[in-house]
This record gives sequence, C-alpha cells and structure tokens, in this order.
Amino acid sequence: MNQTTTNWLEQVQWTADGLVATIAQETVTGTVLMLAWMNRESLKLTVETGHAVYYSRSRQKLWHKGEESGNQQVVLDIRLDCDNDVILLEVEQKGGIACHTGRHHCFYQQLKDNQWLEVDAVLKDPNDMYK
Amino acid sequence: MNQTTTNWLEQVQWTADGLVATIAQETVTGTVLMLAWMNRESLKLTVETGHAVYYSRSRQKLWHKGEESGNQQVVLDIRLDCDNDVILLEVEQKGGIACHTGRHHCFYQQLKDNQWLEVDAVLKDPNDMYK
Repeated sequence: MNQTTTNWLEQVQWTADGLVATIAQETVTGTVLMLAWMNRESLKLTVETGHAVYYSRSRQKLWHKGEESGNQQVVLDIRLDCDNDVILLEVEQKGGIACHTGRHHCFYQQLKDNQWLEVDAVLKDPNDMYK
Repeated sequence: MNQTTTNWLEQVQWTADGLVATIAQETVTGTVLMLAWMNRESLKLTVETGHAVYYSRSRQKLWHKGEESGNQQVVLDIRLDCDNDVILLEVEQKGGIACHTGRHHCFYQQLKDNQWLEVDAVLKDPNDMYK
C-alpha cells in the first residue's frame, strides 16, 4: 500500500508493544460485548475483511474472532477516540455470543455488596463452542 | 476495612502498574462514552462516592471525572469481564458531555476511505468547560 492508504494506521497511538485497546459494541442491542487488543496487522485485516481480528496477548498471535466458535463479529463502523489510543468497533455479533464462557458478553460479573456476582446466563456450553 | 470488604478489589487483575481499563457507557442512550484507567484507590472511591473516579496516567493522579467541567458520571452499575481485567461502568452522564473536546463521547472519529473523519458535533466549547 502507498503512504496515503496507511496514514490512518499510523495516526493510531499504539502502545510501546504496538497495540491498541479495542471495544466491541453490538449495534442492534447497544451491549458492550468485550474489550480486546489489536496490533497494526489485525486492525488492517479487520478493515480489509470486515470481520474483527484481534491480537491475543496471551497466545501472542492474531486472533480471528469466531474462527473456532463461529461467533464472528461483522464490523459495521470503526471509531477512534480523542486521544487516538482506543478503538470502538460497532459490530453484528454472529451467534449472539461474544464471550468464551458462552455468554452474550464478557461483562457478566456485577459488583453488589462487595462481591462480584455472575448475573448473566450462559447461553451455550463452551464445550460445544470449541471442539 | 476488613478482608471481606476488600476481597472484591483484589479479584480485579490489575496491570503491573496497578491499573485496570475501564469503559463508561451511558445507560439511557447506550453510547460508549470513553475508556479510562483506574487504580485501586479510584475504584474504591468510585464505589464509595457513586461517581466515576479514574486515574490519570498522564498527570499521575486521581481524576474525579467532571470536577472542573461539572460533567460528572453517576455510577449505576459496575461490571467486570471474564478475565477480571476490564471494568464496565454504567453511568448517567451529567451535562451530556463526556469528552474534553466538548462532545457527547470520545469516539467521534470514524474510519472512512482510509481517513479518520470527525463526525460528531462539539456541543460545548472546551474553553467554557475548563476555566
């Protein structure tokens, strides 16, 4: 790609590790599904393919969201914040499940009376998601 | 505080710097307002006061959101994700402005044709927000 087509990538304020925090929100429900990290390559692939591609810090490799589970995220909009260091993806969540625990979203623990309570239902057994 | 009342704080997976990424979502509109960071003290204060208190990495001190601008965030719900390393706050955004640029939210730059375009209106002149 020439300079014009990659300038937008360099405008992102990448961390020292070359990553950017990325929030995925399900457009149709407004639910904040998850936060993950991207590197340059995953953001570029996300734009090119129209599907969310993250970078797994634990596995240290690209993470094509839903490649095993089928729960892909179709990207409808890509936003960058005022400091250029956080990305917000508006997505269609395939299968209605973003979390590896089989829940709709990852934020299922609610703080109540000094305890984190699991308040959202498991919609699918993770054993049936990852074979 | 005794051990029981602070256990929830230690269940958070803090970074090496003692921080946790925190997303603020406006409950009534579903808008993802911003992402900021908290340390133990700011999360504890958030719970105790019912108003979002972040930790400013650039200024290296607690950041009582809205203390200058008046645009406080009243906390309605506090969630933790599946990895215990991201917090989601459900908030009421006072003044309808979360961003220091005077916009409703921080994610006003939209990727279109290899460019980040500013697509959301400035609702209030920042000069009138910070005196």
